[in-house]
Amino acid sequence: MTAPTTRSRENTRARLLDAAAQVFAEVGLEGASVENICERAGFTRGAFYSNFESKDALFLELTSVVAAARLETIRARIDAFVARGMLGSDLDALELVHQIMETGMDDRLDVMLMSEIRNHALRSPLFAEAYLVQEQKMTASIEGIIRGIVDSGAFSLRVDVSTAAHLLTSIWEGTMVRCAISGFDGEKLHRAGGAALADMVELLLAPGHSAGASSAS
Amino acid sequence: MTAPTTRSRENTRARLLDAAAQVFAEVGLEGASVENICERAGFTRGAFYSNFESKDALFLELTSVVAAARLETIRARIDAFVARGMLGSDLDALELVHQIMETGMDDRLDVMLMSEIRNHALRSPLFAEAYLVQEQKMTASIEGIIRGIVDSGAFSLRVDVSTAAHLLTSIWEGTMVRCAISGFDGEKLHRAGGAALADMVELLLAPGHSAGASSAS
Repeated sequence: MTAPTTRSRENTRARLLDAAAQVFAEVGLEGASVENICERAGFTRGAFYSNFESKDALFLELTSVVAAARLETIRARIDAFVARGMLGSDLDALELVHQIMETGMDDRLDVMLMSEIRNHALRSPLFAEAYLVQEQKMTASIEGIIRGIVDSGAFSLRVDVSTAAHLLTSIWEGTMVRCAISGFDGEKLHRAGGAALADMVELLLAPGHSAGASSAS
Repeated sequence: MTAPTTRSRENTRARLLDAAAQVFAEVGLEGASVENICERAGFTRGAFYSNFESKDALFLELTSVVAAARLETIRARIDAFVARGMLGSDLDALELVHQIMETGMDDRLDVMLMSEIRNHALRSPLFAEAYLVQEQKMTASIEGIIRGIVDSGAFSLRVDVSTAAHLLTSIWEGTMVRCAISGFDGEKLHRAGGAALADMVELLLAPGHSAGASSAS
């Protein structure tokens, strides 16, 4: 059982993150201040700084929370396919991508947050360091998901896992930004990202990708 | 021969664009003002507004100039290959990409400018409209280059030209942003972009991609 003080601390962090997301939606990363985040959350600056080193640190954690939740959903859906023995079956890889991505929403605010964070990392070498550490973790997580699928023997790839992760991430991010600029949101945004991932997966799969088939050299 | 007034007007626009690039490097898109751009260029606000509708319009034109120059270099190199009859020969597609991208520099400031412009388009629906018109032109230009290569019969693609253009653009942009955040600049940044494009081109090519070979269905 979690100790009350730990629970309370987690609760404070969660409320600060929620408040930061709201303030970000209204005024953006540059416009947001520690003061208005604290005001929104109903905490003092002291409470803020006992939880986060800086505004930048808080927003970096916010992107991490958003990205981790998205990957968690994908991982859970893939696990469900594995549990039902569908990964090794003759289920088409594209059908798999479509089923994994079938339902869901994507928030254009999350796309904006990711975009502003990258922007900020381009401008600030200090923030870039922290950003790259977090991105490395996210990439390792994506590579782990891809490696799990490849190791199941269901599909093989025409490139190594690290290149595949980089290509899938770039395509997904690029598509999400482009579609969010075009005004897509929610289900429509989610579907556009899924369709782009499916295009990329189709290109990444080695010929004869079903279980037991040998891959072309 | 160009009339003196036209030359002078072009000169004013060019000097304003140069000044805007300098001011952007120092303070970013949000920090730049019409005032400090005019001051840097040595023009009045009147001269500014007789050339550009707004600061946003000027920065959008600046990204257009940067992107058009890049595409022009690529197109000229491809034309040189076509003129030497090398596109239809057994020159390997990847070797072609490497040769086209071999020498050159990329400026991380250009990457930052593109990133801030996209960011701004995410926040402002009015600016997004202008951005999308310009992006449409750039996409048409990239599709034209790809179609020219496919029509030469040298290579065939596993996806349609429009999907190929989207995938190549996303991979290039994603790689450039990631590498610029890692501190790459100049030749190193350029080579990273080229390597990512080569990875993508390899995936895009249909099997048996040399001239006259039939593509797998």
